[in-house]
Amino acid sequence: MNARIFRGEIRLDAIPANDRCLAYGDGLFETMRVHRGEVPWWREHWTRLRLGAERLGIPLPDEARVRAEATSLFVDGGDGVLKLLVTRGAGERGYAPPPDPVPTWIVSRHGVPATPGRSLHLHVCGTRLASQPTLAGIKHCNRLEQVLARSEAERAGADEGLMLDMAGNVIGATAANLFATIDGCWVTPAIVDCGIAGVCRAKLLSALDAVERALPLAEVESADAVFLCNAVRGILPVARLGAREWSSHPAIAAARTELSRLHPSFLVEPA
Amino acid sequence: MNARIFRGEIRLDAIPANDRCLAYGDGLFETMRVHRGEVPWWREHWTRLRLGAERLGIPLPDEARVRAEATSLFVDGGDGVLKLLVTRGAGERGYAPPPDPVPTWIVSRHGVPATPGRSLHLHVCGTRLASQPTLAGIKHCNRLEQVLARSEAERAGADEGLMLDMAGNVIGATAANLFATIDGCWVTPAIVDCGIAGVCRAKLLSALDAVERALPLAEVESADAVFLCNAVRGILPVARLGAREWSSHPAIAAARTELSRLHPSFLVEPA
Repeated sequence: MNARIFRGEIRLDAIPANDRCLAYGDGLFETMRVHRGEVPWWREHWTRLRLGAERLGIPLPDEARVRAEATSLFVDGGDGVLKLLVTRGAGERGYAPPPDPVPTWIVSRHGVPATPGRSLHLHVCGTRLASQPTLAGIKHCNRLEQVLARSEAERAGADEGLMLDMAGNVIGATAANLFATIDGCWVTPAIVDCGIAGVCRAKLLSALDAVERALPLAEVESADAVFLCNAVRGILPVARLGAREWSSHPAIAAARTELSRLHPSFLVEPA
Repeated sequence: MNARIFRGEIRLDAIPANDRCLAYGDGLFETMRVHRGEVPWWREHWTRLRLGAERLGIPLPDEARVRAEATSLFVDGGDGVLKLLVTRGAGERGYAPPPDPVPTWIVSRHGVPATPGRSLHLHVCGTRLASQPTLAGIKHCNRLEQVLARSEAERAGADEGLMLDMAGNVIGATAANLFATIDGCWVTPAIVDCGIAGVCRAKLLSALDAVERALPLAEVESADAVFLCNAVRGILPVARLGAREWSSHPAIAAARTELSRLHPSFLVEPA
Protein backbone atom coordinates (compact mmCIF):
# COMPACT_ATOMS: atom_id res chain seq x y z
CA MET A 1 0.00 0.00 0.00
CA ASN A 2 1.30 3.40 -1.01
CA ALA A 3 0.07 5.62 1.83
CA ARG A 4 0.72 9.00 3.43
CA ILE A 5 -0.35 9.83 6.96
CA PHE A 6 -1.01 13.29 8.40
CA ARG A 7 -2.04 14.84 11.67
CA GLY A 8 -3.68 18.13 10.71
CA GLU A 9 -1.07 19.80 8.50
CA ILE A 10 1.86 17.66 9.65
CA ARG A 11 3.05 14.54 7.89
CA LEU A 12 3.57 11.55 10.20
CA ASP A 13 5.63 8.41 9.83
CA ALA A 14 2.97 6.22 11.40
CA ILE A 15 -0.45 6.08 12.99
CA PRO A 16 -0.31 6.98 16.67
CA ALA A 17 -1.22 3.94 18.80
CA ASN A 18 -3.88 6.01 20.56
CA ASP A 19 -5.75 7.01 17.42
CA ARG A 20 -9.48 6.96 18.05
CA CYS A 21 -10.29 5.20 14.81
CA LEU A 22 -8.16 2.28 15.93
CA ALA A 23 -9.83 2.30 19.34
CA TYR A 24 -13.46 2.91 18.39
CA GLY A 25 -13.79 3.14 14.60
CA ASP A 26 -14.17 6.86 15.22
CA GLY A 27 -13.63 8.09 11.68
CA LEU A 28 -14.87 8.24 8.09
CA PHE A 29 -13.61 7.11 4.73
CA GLU A 30 -14.08 7.53 1.01
CA THR A 31 -12.98 5.23 -1.77
CA MET A 32 -12.66 6.92 -5.15
CA ARG A 33 -11.96 5.77 -8.67
CA VAL A 34 -8.98 7.52 -10.22
CA HIS A 35 -8.85 8.00 -13.99
CA ARG A 36 -5.56 9.03 -15.57
CA GLY A 37 -4.42 10.66 -12.34
CA GLU A 38 -7.68 12.55 -11.80
CA VAL A 39 -10.61 11.96 -9.44
CA PRO A 40 -13.68 12.82 -11.51
CA TRP A 41 -16.09 12.54 -8.57
CA TRP A 42 -13.89 14.31 -5.98
CA ARG A 43 -16.54 16.92 -5.23
CA GLU A 44 -19.23 14.32 -4.55
CA HIS A 45 -16.97 12.26 -2.29
CA TRP A 46 -15.86 15.32 -0.34
CA THR A 47 -19.49 16.41 0.08
CA ARG A 48 -20.44 13.07 1.61
CA LEU A 49 -17.35 13.12 3.80
CA ARG A 50 -18.34 16.57 5.06
CA LEU A 51 -21.85 15.33 5.81
CA GLY A 52 -20.41 12.48 7.85
CA ALA A 53 -17.97 14.80 9.62
CA GLU A 54 -20.81 17.09 10.63
CA ARG A 55 -22.84 14.16 11.89
CA LEU A 56 -19.97 12.83 14.01
CA GLY A 57 -18.51 16.20 14.98
CA ILE A 58 -15.12 15.45 13.44
CA PRO A 59 -13.23 18.46 12.06
CA LEU A 60 -12.01 18.00 8.49
CA PRO A 61 -8.54 18.86 7.26
CA ASP A 62 -8.17 21.47 4.53
CA GLU A 63 -9.73 20.10 1.35
CA ALA A 64 -7.17 21.60 -1.05
CA ARG A 65 -4.30 20.11 0.95
CA VAL A 66 -5.92 16.68 1.07
CA ARG A 67 -6.63 16.76 -2.64
CA ALA A 68 -3.08 17.80 -3.44
CA GLU A 69 -1.60 14.99 -1.35
CA ALA A 70 -4.07 12.49 -2.79
CA THR A 71 -3.43 13.34 -6.42
CA SER A 72 0.32 13.40 -5.82
CA LEU A 73 0.04 9.64 -5.33
CA PHE A 74 -1.04 9.48 -8.98
CA VAL A 75 1.48 11.84 -10.61
CA ASP A 76 2.22 9.09 -13.10
CA GLY A 77 -1.24 9.75 -14.56
CA GLY A 78 -2.27 6.21 -13.78
CA ASP A 79 -5.64 4.66 -13.04
CA GLY A 80 -6.52 3.17 -9.71
CA VAL A 81 -8.34 3.64 -6.44
CA LEU A 82 -7.76 6.40 -3.91
CA LYS A 83 -8.77 5.78 -0.32
CA LEU A 84 -9.10 8.67 2.10
CA LEU A 85 -9.51 7.94 5.81
CA VAL A 86 -10.17 10.78 8.26
CA THR A 87 -10.18 10.00 11.99
CA ARG A 88 -10.97 12.09 15.04
CA GLY A 89 -7.25 11.86 15.79
CA ALA A 90 -5.39 10.83 18.90
CA GLY A 91 -7.08 10.82 22.26
CA GLU A 92 -6.91 9.64 25.83
CA ARG A 93 -8.54 6.35 26.79
CA GLY A 94 -12.33 6.69 27.01
CA TYR A 95 -15.21 7.47 24.68
CA ALA A 96 -15.34 11.20 25.38
CA PRO A 97 -13.94 12.97 22.32
CA PRO A 98 -11.02 15.32 22.98
CA PRO A 99 -12.26 18.91 23.24
CA ASP A 100 -10.07 20.12 20.35
CA PRO A 101 -9.44 17.13 18.14
CA VAL A 102 -6.85 17.31 15.36
CA PRO A 103 -7.88 14.86 12.64
CA THR A 104 -5.54 12.15 11.47
CA TRP A 105 -5.88 11.49 7.74
CA ILE A 106 -4.46 8.93 5.39
CA VAL A 107 -4.45 8.91 1.61
CA SER A 108 -3.52 5.65 -0.07
CA ARG A 109 -3.26 4.31 -3.60
CA HIS A 110 -4.64 0.93 -4.59
CA GLY A 111 -5.13 -0.98 -7.81
CA VAL A 112 -8.47 -1.29 -9.55
CA PRO A 113 -10.03 -4.49 -8.17
CA ALA A 114 -10.38 -7.43 -10.51
CA THR A 115 -13.93 -7.89 -11.75
CA PRO A 116 -15.22 -11.36 -12.50
CA GLY A 117 -15.61 -11.79 -16.25
CA ARG A 118 -19.30 -12.54 -15.76
CA SER A 119 -22.29 -11.19 -13.90
CA LEU A 120 -22.27 -11.55 -10.12
CA HIS A 121 -23.53 -14.30 -7.86
CA LEU A 122 -25.00 -12.94 -4.63
CA HIS A 123 -25.48 -14.63 -1.30
CA VAL A 124 -28.23 -13.47 1.06
CA CYS A 125 -26.32 -12.86 4.30
CA GLY A 126 -27.63 -13.89 7.70
CA THR A 127 -25.91 -10.87 9.23
CA ARG A 128 -28.42 -8.05 9.02
CA LEU A 129 -28.02 -4.31 9.27
CA ALA A 130 -29.10 -2.79 12.58
CA SER A 131 -31.40 0.19 12.52
CA GLN A 132 -29.47 3.29 13.61
CA PRO A 133 -30.67 6.47 11.89
CA THR A 134 -27.90 8.54 13.51
CA LEU A 135 -25.26 6.62 11.59
CA ALA A 136 -27.20 5.72 8.42
CA GLY A 137 -26.08 7.02 5.06
CA ILE A 138 -22.58 8.17 6.04
CA LYS A 139 -19.41 6.18 5.41
CA HIS A 140 -18.11 5.82 8.96
CA CYS A 141 -15.58 3.26 10.15
CA ASN A 142 -17.88 1.03 12.25
CA ARG A 143 -18.10 -1.75 9.70
CA LEU A 144 -18.22 -5.04 11.59
CA GLU A 145 -21.62 -5.86 10.09
CA GLN A 146 -20.14 -5.61 6.60
CA VAL A 147 -17.05 -7.60 7.62
CA LEU A 148 -19.15 -10.46 8.99
CA ALA A 149 -21.55 -10.41 6.04
CA ARG A 150 -18.70 -10.40 3.55
CA SER A 151 -17.17 -13.39 5.34
CA GLU A 152 -20.47 -15.21 4.89
CA ALA A 153 -20.49 -14.45 1.17
CA GLU A 154 -16.91 -15.74 0.84
CA ARG A 155 -17.77 -18.96 2.63
CA ALA A 156 -20.76 -19.40 0.32
CA GLY A 157 -18.50 -18.97 -2.72
CA ALA A 158 -20.48 -15.91 -3.85
CA ASP A 159 -19.08 -12.73 -5.37
CA GLU A 160 -20.88 -10.45 -2.95
CA GLY A 161 -23.30 -10.57 -0.04
CA LEU A 162 -26.77 -9.09 -0.05
CA MET A 163 -27.68 -7.40 3.23
CA LEU A 164 -31.16 -6.98 4.65
CA ASP A 165 -32.37 -4.79 7.47
CA MET A 166 -34.03 -6.32 10.51
CA ALA A 167 -37.44 -6.09 8.79
CA GLY A 168 -36.26 -8.15 5.81
CA ASN A 169 -35.92 -5.33 3.32
CA VAL A 170 -32.92 -5.33 1.01
CA ILE A 171 -30.50 -2.47 1.77
CA GLY A 172 -27.61 -3.29 -0.55
CA ALA A 173 -24.52 -5.43 -0.89
CA THR A 174 -21.68 -5.28 1.62
CA ALA A 175 -19.74 -2.82 -0.55
CA ALA A 176 -22.24 -1.64 -3.14
CA ASN A 177 -25.73 -0.25 -3.53
CA LEU A 178 -28.41 -2.11 -5.46
CA PHE A 179 -30.85 -1.17 -8.21
CA ALA A 180 -33.67 -3.38 -9.48
CA THR A 181 -35.94 -2.77 -12.43
CA ILE A 182 -39.56 -3.39 -11.46
CA ASP A 183 -42.48 -2.69 -13.82
CA GLY A 184 -40.16 -0.80 -16.13
CA CYS A 185 -38.83 1.52 -13.39
CA TRP A 186 -35.49 1.47 -11.58
CA VAL A 187 -35.88 1.16 -7.82
CA THR A 188 -33.18 1.39 -5.15
CA PRO A 189 -33.58 0.88 -1.39
CA ALA A 190 -34.19 4.04 0.61
CA ILE A 191 -31.27 4.68 2.97
CA VAL A 192 -32.99 5.87 6.14
CA ASP A 193 -32.22 3.65 9.11
CA CYS A 194 -29.12 1.83 7.88
CA GLY A 195 -26.89 1.40 4.83
CA ILE A 196 -24.56 3.77 3.01
CA ALA A 197 -25.78 6.37 0.53
CA GLY A 198 -23.24 5.70 -2.21
CA VAL A 199 -21.83 8.35 -4.52
CA CYS A 200 -22.46 6.19 -7.59
CA ARG A 201 -25.97 5.49 -6.30
CA ALA A 202 -26.67 9.23 -6.12
CA LYS A 203 -25.46 9.70 -9.69
CA LEU A 204 -27.64 6.86 -10.95
CA LEU A 205 -30.70 7.91 -8.95
CA SER A 206 -30.69 11.07 -10.98
CA ALA A 207 -29.52 9.66 -14.32
CA LEU A 208 -32.01 6.77 -14.29
CA ASP A 209 -34.86 8.75 -12.73
CA ALA A 210 -34.98 5.98 -10.15
CA VAL A 211 -37.27 5.64 -7.15
CA GLU A 212 -36.04 5.26 -3.56
CA ARG A 213 -38.27 3.12 -1.36
CA ALA A 214 -38.38 0.12 0.95
CA LEU A 215 -37.57 -2.95 -1.12
CA PRO A 216 -38.50 -6.37 0.29
CA LEU A 217 -36.31 -9.30 -0.73
CA ALA A 218 -39.20 -10.91 -2.63
CA GLU A 219 -39.44 -7.85 -4.88
CA VAL A 220 -35.76 -8.04 -5.72
CA GLU A 221 -36.13 -11.72 -6.51
CA SER A 222 -39.02 -11.01 -8.88
CA ALA A 223 -37.38 -7.96 -10.50
CA ASP A 224 -36.64 -8.05 -14.24
CA ALA A 225 -33.01 -7.08 -13.75
CA VAL A 226 -30.71 -6.24 -10.84
CA PHE A 227 -27.33 -4.56 -10.60
CA LEU A 228 -24.92 -3.45 -7.91
CA CYS A 229 -22.99 -0.22 -8.14
CA ASN A 230 -20.26 1.67 -6.36
CA ALA A 231 -17.85 4.48 -7.12
CA VAL A 232 -14.92 2.12 -7.70
CA ARG A 233 -16.44 -0.45 -10.06
CA GLY A 234 -19.44 1.31 -11.56
CA ILE A 235 -22.33 -0.98 -12.51
CA LEU A 236 -22.05 -4.72 -11.89
CA PRO A 237 -24.95 -6.82 -13.26
CA VAL A 238 -26.29 -9.56 -11.03
CA ALA A 239 -26.73 -13.03 -12.54
CA ARG A 240 -27.81 -15.04 -9.53
CA LEU A 241 -29.38 -14.55 -6.12
CA GLY A 242 -29.96 -17.84 -4.35
CA ALA A 243 -32.09 -19.88 -6.77
CA ARG A 244 -33.07 -16.88 -8.90
CA GLU A 245 -31.11 -16.33 -12.12
CA TRP A 246 -31.11 -13.44 -14.54
CA SER A 247 -29.75 -13.23 -18.05
CA SER A 248 -28.47 -9.97 -19.49
CA HIS A 249 -31.05 -7.23 -19.81
CA PRO A 250 -31.13 -4.19 -22.10
CA ALA A 251 -32.07 -1.90 -19.19
CA ILE A 252 -28.70 -2.62 -17.57
CA ALA A 253 -26.86 -1.92 -20.81
CA ALA A 254 -28.72 1.39 -21.00
CA ALA A 255 -27.83 2.22 -17.40
CA ARG A 256 -24.17 1.53 -18.12
CA THR A 257 -24.30 3.85 -21.07
CA GLU A 258 -25.72 6.57 -18.82
CA LEU A 259 -23.01 6.00 -16.23
CA SER A 260 -20.24 6.11 -18.81
CA ARG A 261 -21.29 9.70 -19.55
CA LEU A 262 -20.74 10.57 -15.88
CA HIS A 263 -17.34 9.00 -15.24
CA PRO A 264 -14.71 8.16 -17.87
CA SER A 265 -13.58 5.01 -16.03
CA PHE A 266 -16.95 3.39 -16.62
CA LEU A 267 -16.90 3.29 -20.38
CA VAL A 268 -19.20 0.61 -21.69
CA GLU A 269 -17.39 -2.58 -22.57
CA PRO A 270 -18.22 -4.08 -25.95
CA ALA A 271 -20.99 -6.66 -25.61
CA MET B 1 0.60 6.41 26.73
CA ASN B 2 3.00 3.62 27.57
CA ALA B 3 2.20 1.08 24.85
CA ARG B 4 3.68 -1.95 23.13
CA ILE B 5 2.52 -3.15 19.73
CA PHE B 6 2.80 -6.66 18.31
CA ARG B 7 1.93 -8.53 15.16
CA GLY B 8 1.51 -12.13 16.24
CA GLU B 9 4.76 -12.87 18.08
CA ILE B 10 6.71 -9.94 16.64
CA ARG B 11 7.08 -6.58 18.33
CA LEU B 12 6.36 -3.63 16.02
CA ASP B 13 7.38 0.01 16.19
CA ALA B 14 4.00 1.24 15.01
CA ILE B 15 0.54 0.27 13.84
CA PRO B 16 0.51 -0.60 10.14
CA ALA B 17 -1.54 1.94 8.19
CA ASN B 18 -3.62 -0.89 6.73
CA ASP B 19 -4.69 -2.35 10.04
CA ARG B 20 -8.30 -3.48 9.85
CA CYS B 21 -9.23 -2.03 13.20
CA LEU B 22 -8.26 1.41 11.90
CA ALA B 23 -10.24 0.81 8.71
CA TYR B 24 -13.35 -0.91 10.06
CA GLY B 25 -13.16 -1.14 13.85
CA ASP B 26 -12.41 -4.81 13.21
CA GLY B 27 -11.12 -5.74 16.65
CA LEU B 28 -11.81 -6.21 20.33
CA PHE B 29 -10.57 -4.66 23.55
CA GLU B 30 -10.45 -5.16 27.29
CA THR B 31 -9.80 -2.57 29.98
CA MET B 32 -8.57 -4.01 33.26
CA ARG B 33 -7.86 -2.64 36.71
CA VAL B 34 -4.31 -3.34 37.85
CA HIS B 35 -3.61 -3.68 41.56
CA ARG B 36 0.03 -3.61 42.71
CA GLY B 37 1.21 -4.83 39.34
CA GLU B 38 -1.33 -7.67 39.16
CA VAL B 39 -4.55 -8.07 37.17
CA PRO B 40 -6.95 -9.82 39.58
CA TRP B 41 -9.64 -10.35 36.95
CA TRP B 42 -7.33 -11.40 34.09
CA ARG B 43 -9.09 -14.72 33.61
CA GLU B 44 -12.52 -13.09 33.31
CA HIS B 45 -11.30 -10.49 30.83
CA TRP B 46 -9.54 -13.07 28.69
CA THR B 47 -12.66 -15.24 28.70
CA ARG B 48 -14.78 -12.39 27.37
CA LEU B 49 -12.11 -11.54 24.81
CA ARG B 50 -12.12 -15.13 23.61
CA LEU B 51 -15.91 -15.08 23.30
CA GLY B 52 -15.68 -11.94 21.16
CA ALA B 53 -12.87 -13.42 19.07
CA GLU B 54 -14.93 -16.52 18.37
CA ARG B 55 -17.92 -14.39 17.41
CA LEU B 56 -15.88 -12.26 14.99
CA GLY B 57 -13.56 -15.02 13.78
CA ILE B 58 -10.42 -13.23 14.93
CA PRO B 59 -7.54 -15.47 16.02
CA LEU B 60 -6.11 -14.58 19.41
CA PRO B 61 -2.42 -14.31 20.21
CA ASP B 62 -0.93 -16.61 22.83
CA GLU B 63 -2.45 -15.75 26.20
CA ALA B 64 0.72 -16.32 28.25
CA ARG B 65 2.71 -14.04 25.95
CA VAL B 66 0.10 -11.29 26.09
CA ARG B 67 -0.12 -11.52 29.86
CA ALA B 68 3.66 -11.39 30.23
CA GLU B 69 3.93 -8.30 28.03
CA ALA B 70 1.00 -6.66 29.79
CA THR B 71 2.28 -7.19 33.30
CA SER B 72 5.78 -6.11 32.27
CA LEU B 73 4.28 -2.62 31.89
CA PHE B 74 3.63 -2.74 35.63
CA VAL B 75 6.93 -4.16 36.89
CA ASP B 76 7.07 -1.27 39.33
CA GLY B 77 4.20 -2.95 41.18
CA GLY B 78 2.02 0.08 40.59
CA ASP B 79 -1.71 0.49 40.30
CA GLY B 80 -3.42 1.58 37.12
CA VAL B 81 -5.37 0.50 34.08
CA LEU B 82 -4.26 -1.99 31.44
CA LYS B 83 -5.82 -1.80 28.02
CA LEU B 84 -5.52 -4.69 25.60
CA LEU B 85 -6.58 -4.20 21.98
CA VAL B 86 -6.61 -7.15 19.56
CA THR B 87 -7.29 -6.47 15.88
CA ARG B 88 -7.75 -8.76 12.91
CA GLY B 89 -4.41 -7.41 11.72
CA ALA B 90 -3.33 -5.90 8.44
CA GLY B 91 -5.32 -6.47 5.29
CA GLU B 92 -5.96 -5.39 1.77
CA ARG B 93 -8.62 -2.79 1.07
CA GLY B 94 -12.13 -4.28 1.30
CA TYR B 95 -14.32 -5.89 3.94
CA ALA B 96 -13.36 -9.49 3.19
CA PRO B 97 -11.12 -10.67 6.02
CA PRO B 98 -7.73 -12.00 4.97
CA PRO B 99 -7.79 -15.81 4.78
CA ASP B 100 -5.02 -16.22 7.37
CA PRO B 101 -5.10 -13.13 9.56
CA VAL B 102 -2.26 -12.45 12.00
CA PRO B 103 -3.67 -10.39 14.88
CA THR B 104 -2.17 -7.06 15.83
CA TRP B 105 -2.28 -6.48 19.58
CA ILE B 106 -1.44 -3.55 21.79
CA VAL B 107 -1.00 -3.46 25.54
CA SER B 108 -0.94 -0.04 27.15
CA ARG B 109 -0.70 1.38 30.66
CA HIS B 110 -2.94 4.18 31.88
CA GLY B 111 -3.63 5.90 35.17
CA VAL B 112 -6.68 5.18 37.28
CA PRO B 113 -9.30 7.72 36.16
CA ALA B 114 -10.27 10.43 38.58
CA THR B 115 -13.62 9.78 40.24
CA PRO B 116 -15.83 12.70 41.21
CA GLY B 117 -15.89 13.03 44.99
CA ARG B 118 -19.65 12.60 44.96
CA SER B 119 -22.27 10.35 43.44
CA LEU B 120 -22.81 10.63 39.68
CA HIS B 121 -25.11 12.81 37.62
CA LEU B 122 -26.47 10.98 34.58
CA HIS B 123 -27.85 12.38 31.36
CA VAL B 124 -30.34 10.36 29.32
CA CYS B 125 -28.75 10.34 25.86
CA GLY B 126 -30.70 10.84 22.66
CA THR B 127 -28.31 8.47 20.89
CA ARG B 128 -29.76 5.02 21.34
CA LEU B 129 -28.25 1.58 20.97
CA ALA B 130 -29.20 -0.26 17.80
CA SER B 131 -30.43 -3.81 18.07
CA GLN B 132 -27.76 -6.16 16.72
CA PRO B 133 -27.70 -9.52 18.49
CA THR B 134 -24.65 -10.65 16.52
CA LEU B 135 -22.52 -7.96 18.14
CA ALA B 136 -24.25 -7.65 21.53
CA GLY B 137 -22.39 -8.47 24.71
CA ILE B 138 -18.85 -8.51 23.31
CA LYS B 139 -16.42 -5.61 23.60
CA HIS B 140 -15.72 -4.93 19.93
CA CYS B 141 -14.28 -1.74 18.49
CA ASN B 142 -17.38 -0.38 16.71
CA ARG B 143 -18.16 2.24 19.33
CA LEU B 144 -19.53 5.30 17.53
CA GLU B 145 -22.80 5.04 19.44
CA GLN B 146 -20.94 5.33 22.72
CA VAL B 147 -18.76 8.16 21.39
CA LEU B 148 -21.78 10.19 20.32
CA ALA B 149 -23.68 9.46 23.53
CA ARG B 150 -20.71 10.39 25.68
CA SER B 151 -20.41 13.68 23.76
CA GLU B 152 -24.03 14.39 24.65
CA ALA B 153 -23.36 13.73 28.31
CA GLU B 154 -20.36 16.08 28.25
CA ARG B 155 -22.39 18.84 26.63
CA ALA B 156 -25.07 18.36 29.28
CA GLY B 157 -22.46 18.72 32.03
CA ALA B 158 -23.22 15.21 33.32
CA ASP B 159 -20.73 12.66 34.61
CA GLU B 160 -22.00 9.88 32.37
CA GLY B 161 -24.67 9.18 29.77
CA LEU B 162 -27.47 6.69 30.17
CA MET B 163 -28.18 4.75 26.99
CA LEU B 164 -31.50 3.23 25.99
CA ASP B 165 -32.29 0.73 23.30
CA MET B 166 -34.69 1.60 20.50
CA ALA B 167 -37.63 0.34 22.60
CA GLY B 168 -36.81 2.72 25.46
CA ASN B 169 -35.31 0.20 27.84
CA VAL B 170 -32.21 1.18 29.78
CA ILE B 171 -29.15 -0.78 28.69
CA GLY B 172 -26.39 0.94 30.66
CA ALA B 173 -24.11 3.94 30.67
CA THR B 174 -21.68 4.63 27.82
CA ALA B 175 -18.83 2.93 29.71
CA ALA B 176 -20.51 1.08 32.55
CA ASN B 177 -23.32 -1.31 33.34
CA LEU B 178 -26.21 -0.35 35.60
CA PHE B 179 -27.89 -1.95 38.59
CA ALA B 180 -31.07 -0.70 40.24
CA THR B 181 -32.69 -1.93 43.42
CA ILE B 182 -36.42 -2.49 42.93
CA ASP B 183 -38.66 -4.02 45.59
CA GLY B 184 -35.61 -5.06 47.55
CA CYS B 185 -33.96 -6.88 44.65
CA TRP B 186 -31.02 -5.83 42.45
CA VAL B 187 -31.94 -5.73 38.78
CA THR B 188 -29.63 -5.16 35.79
CA PRO B 189 -30.62 -4.87 32.11
CA ALA B 190 -30.45 -8.10 30.15
CA ILE B 191 -27.76 -7.84 27.44
CA VAL B 192 -29.39 -9.58 24.49
CA ASP B 193 -29.70 -7.29 21.49
CA CYS B 194 -27.20 -4.55 22.38
CA GLY B 195 -24.88 -3.41 25.13
CA ILE B 196 -21.74 -4.89 26.63
CA ALA B 197 -21.78 -7.69 29.19
CA GLY B 198 -19.26 -6.21 31.61
CA VAL B 199 -16.83 -8.24 33.67
CA CYS B 200 -17.74 -6.32 36.84
CA ARG B 201 -21.42 -6.78 36.00
CA ALA B 202 -20.94 -10.55 35.83
CA LYS B 203 -19.21 -10.55 39.23
CA LEU B 204 -22.02 -8.52 40.79
CA LEU B 205 -24.80 -10.51 39.15
CA SER B 206 -23.58 -13.48 41.11
CA ALA B 207 -22.53 -11.70 44.31
CA LEU B 208 -25.77 -9.73 44.63
CA ASP B 209 -28.03 -12.53 43.38
CA ALA B 210 -29.31 -9.98 40.89
CA VAL B 211 -31.92 -10.43 38.18
CA GLU B 212 -31.32 -9.76 34.47
CA ARG B 213 -34.33 -8.48 32.61
CA ALA B 214 -35.66 -5.69 30.39
CA LEU B 215 -35.61 -2.47 32.41
CA PRO B 216 -37.71 0.45 31.17
CA LEU B 217 -36.45 3.93 31.98
CA ALA B 218 -39.45 4.58 34.23
CA GLU B 219 -38.46 1.66 36.43
CA VAL B 220 -34.94 3.00 36.85
CA GLU B 221 -36.37 6.40 37.75
CA SER B 222 -38.57 4.87 40.42
CA ALA B 223 -35.89 2.51 41.79
CA ASP B 224 -34.78 2.90 45.40
CA ALA B 225 -31.11 3.10 44.48
CA VAL B 226 -29.02 2.98 41.29
CA PHE B 227 -25.35 2.43 40.63
CA LEU B 228 -23.05 2.07 37.66
CA CYS B 229 -20.19 -0.39 37.58
CA ASN B 230 -17.23 -1.36 35.48
CA ALA B 231 -13.99 -3.27 35.88
CA VAL B 232 -11.91 -0.10 36.16
CA ARG B 233 -13.85 1.90 38.72
CA GLY B 234 -15.96 -0.68 40.55
CA ILE B 235 -19.28 0.62 41.86
CA LEU B 236 -20.26 4.24 41.30
CA PRO B 237 -23.47 5.36 43.05
CA VAL B 238 -25.86 7.51 41.02
CA ALA B 239 -27.18 10.69 42.65
CA ARG B 240 -29.17 12.21 39.83
CA LEU B 241 -30.92 11.19 36.62
CA GLY B 242 -32.73 14.10 35.01
CA ALA B 243 -35.07 15.42 37.69
CA ARG B 244 -34.81 12.29 39.86
CA GLU B 245 -32.40 12.45 42.80
CA TRP B 246 -31.21 9.75 45.17
CA SER B 247 -29.46 10.04 48.48
CA SER B 248 -27.05 7.37 49.70
CA HIS B 249 -28.60 3.97 50.28
CA PRO B 250 -27.44 1.10 52.48
CA ALA B 251 -27.96 -1.41 49.66
CA ILE B 252 -25.20 0.29 47.68
CA ALA B 253 -22.87 0.27 50.66
CA ALA B 254 -23.56 -3.45 51.01
CA ALA B 255 -22.89 -4.04 47.30
CA ARG B 256 -19.57 -2.22 47.61
CA THR B 257 -18.60 -4.42 50.51
CA GLU B 258 -19.37 -7.48 48.39
CA LEU B 259 -17.31 -6.15 45.50
CA SER B 260 -14.35 -5.34 47.75
CA ARG B 261 -14.14 -9.05 48.53
CA LEU B 262 -13.78 -9.80 44.81
CA HIS B 263 -11.13 -7.26 43.79
CA PRO B 264 -8.61 -5.58 46.09
CA SER B 265 -8.76 -2.28 44.20
CA PHE B 266 -12.36 -1.78 45.22
CA LEU B 267 -11.88 -1.61 48.96
CA VAL B 268 -14.75 0.25 50.57
CA GLU B 269 -13.90 3.85 51.30
CA PRO B 270 -14.77 5.09 54.77
CA ALA B 271 -18.24 6.64 54.80
